[in-house]
Amino acid sequence: MDPTALPVSTDILFSDILAAAARIAPHAHVTPVLRSRGLDALAGCTLHFKAEPLQRAGAFKFRGACNAVWSLDDATAARGVVTHSSGNHGGALALAAQTRGIPCHVVVPDNAVVAKLAAIEGYGAVLHRCAPTIAAREAMCAQVQAETGAELVHPYTDPRVIAGQGTAAMELLGTAGALDAIVIPVGGGGLASGTAIAARALAPDCRVFGAEPAGAADTFESLRRGERVTDVVPDTICDGLRGTLGAPDFELLREHRVEVLTVADADTIAAMRLLWQRTKLVVEPSSTIALAMVLGNRERFAGQRVGVILSGGNVDFDALPW
Amino acid sequence: MDPTALPVSTDILFSDILAAAARIAPHAHVTPVLRSRGLDALAGCTLHFKAEPLQRAGAFKFRGACNAVWSLDDATAARGVVTHSSGNHGGALALAAQTRGIPCHVVVPDNAVVAKLAAIEGYGAVLHRCAPTIAAREAMCAQVQAETGAELVHPYTDPRVIAGQGTAAMELLGTAGALDAIVIPVGGGGLASGTAIAARALAPDCRVFGAEPAGAADTFESLRRGERVTDVVPDTICDGLRGTLGAPDFELLREHRVEVLTVADADTIAAMRLLWQRTKLVVEPSSTIALAMVLGNRERFAGQRVGVILSGGNVDFDALPW
Repeated sequence: MDPTALPVSTDILFSDILAAAARIAPHAHVTPVLRSRGLDALAGCTLHFKAEPLQRAGAFKFRGACNAVWSLDDATAARGVVTHSSGNHGGALALAAQTRGIPCHVVVPDNAVVAKLAAIEGYGAVLHRCAPTIAAREAMCAQVQAETGAELVHPYTDPRVIAGQGTAAMELLGTAGALDAIVIPVGGGGLASGTAIAARALAPDCRVFGAEPAGAADTFESLRRGERVTDVVPDTICDGLRGTLGAPDFELLREHRVEVLTVADADTIAAMRLLWQRTKLVVEPSSTIALAMVLGNRERFAGQRVGVILSGGNVDFDALPW
Repeated sequence: MDPTALPVSTDILFSDILAAAARIAPHAHVTPVLRSRGLDALAGCTLHFKAEPLQRAGAFKFRGACNAVWSLDDATAARGVVTHSSGNHGGALALAAQTRGIPCHVVVPDNAVVAKLAAIEGYGAVLHRCAPTIAAREAMCAQVQAETGAELVHPYTDPRVIAGQGTAAMELLGTAGALDAIVIPVGGGGLASGTAIAARALAPDCRVFGAEPAGAADTFESLRRGERVTDVVPDTICDGLRGTLGAPDFELLREHRVEVLTVADADTIAAMRLLWQRTKLVVEPSSTIALAMVLGNRERFAGQRVGVILSGGNVDFDALPW
């Protein structure tokens, strides 16, 4: 079974994001919004960078994971949580579980990056290795759930996760003030969905744009065709954006008229250097794609106030792409 | 003449730092103080990182330069400012002059790094090239002063600069609360001097430690011998710490009992990776040396609350040291 097709509700309200903000406040950072006059001049608009690399565990993912973990009743929580991820969501859920003192299980593919697995284990999670296929991952997740009673927290279709991710845009609008647009990277669609819900409630005139790798453009294609495309084989340096758009995320992006534009990896890499130089933040390619999209579509943003969610900063320093 | 021997007053009061803070407030950022539980665990103490890479022009140097520029009366200011620097002070003074709309001249050695010169020019300064010797630099500075009437703003002996640098520690203590120690990198001694003055006024029990490259340990030697050592030939990756301890800085460091410890470049590089990974900040080697010093002297800081001024983030991404 394709897990992204799970029948998860798209009925996520702004009040869920508000509740998430209160729930995660004791554990998550309110990250700063950074400006760069140099980048403004390059882009021809004013850019307001939400600095999620400074979030705990180095990415916005902690928001959704933390909201999910602290949404559980005590009895459920005691049995722990489980997810499948070889990246930021695994680390985020592990750290979120640690903040509540409950077990966390992360199903990881055999071919995952060793450094990322070490980070997940560093936050106290139990790793369960499986073959790098969806079927093997699902089977292992089901097995862990059966054996432990742990609650599944899906990386981007879980409504608690989507509501948590929406807190980033809520903070951004609260700090930067009125924005004409917010740009976010698109992978599975959790951040895009949460952002769209927050923006509609707080700033109905603010458009939401997704930046997607040209080599993993399933969301772009899904929106273009009007049906969810699930057969794209990702080929991109943006390791956080290789997932397949979730079913509820697809519905939410359509409902909220999120516009997705694609970006070539070379432009994402160039934007990565620019961001490191100008903002002094370590930002991963899966995040720098958002600036690359703005720079590649200057005419759409000319003179506007543009929020950019720099979603994470978990980078392999031994494999910098320049 | 050795410019670091200029007869500059060491009579810098905390009230000068307070005045500097008010003077630079419209132009400089109040940078955040970052925490990392992971680094705390490694260091065996709690670390409070003052994030000066997020300062304008990417380093604390903007504080002192900005204070100097805005201390000038209008007639003097109109003639502009001049300094010699191939690094962060040059860029900082250029940007500070730009905030006041006055000319800036920067004398740079022929062998300076092209990227750094581009940054200085990017802030609108006029570059004056000279041979890479102290004599040539002095002659060129004197010539620019004679021709333009520009005011010399020395990188680390100017009392306006020292007072400005002290605002970083003032903010750090205001945000982090009581600290047992503050650790700063030591080059010419301007940041160390300003930090010592601020700490004595705000937190008399807070000790100030300087971290100096083992390959450029003129300050360590000067304090050990009780006289200023000026004949060290620097050999270190920390390009911002190759300058010679200034005469007033030497007096101030002695008076305030700043303790300087040396660090091998290899440890500074290891600390650089750690900081990038854990804080997600781009921090230059001349700054990561401060964390390296703490990690190399755990017993001195065990269980303490330690402030670390991460002084800058201007890095050549084409020449990362790992």
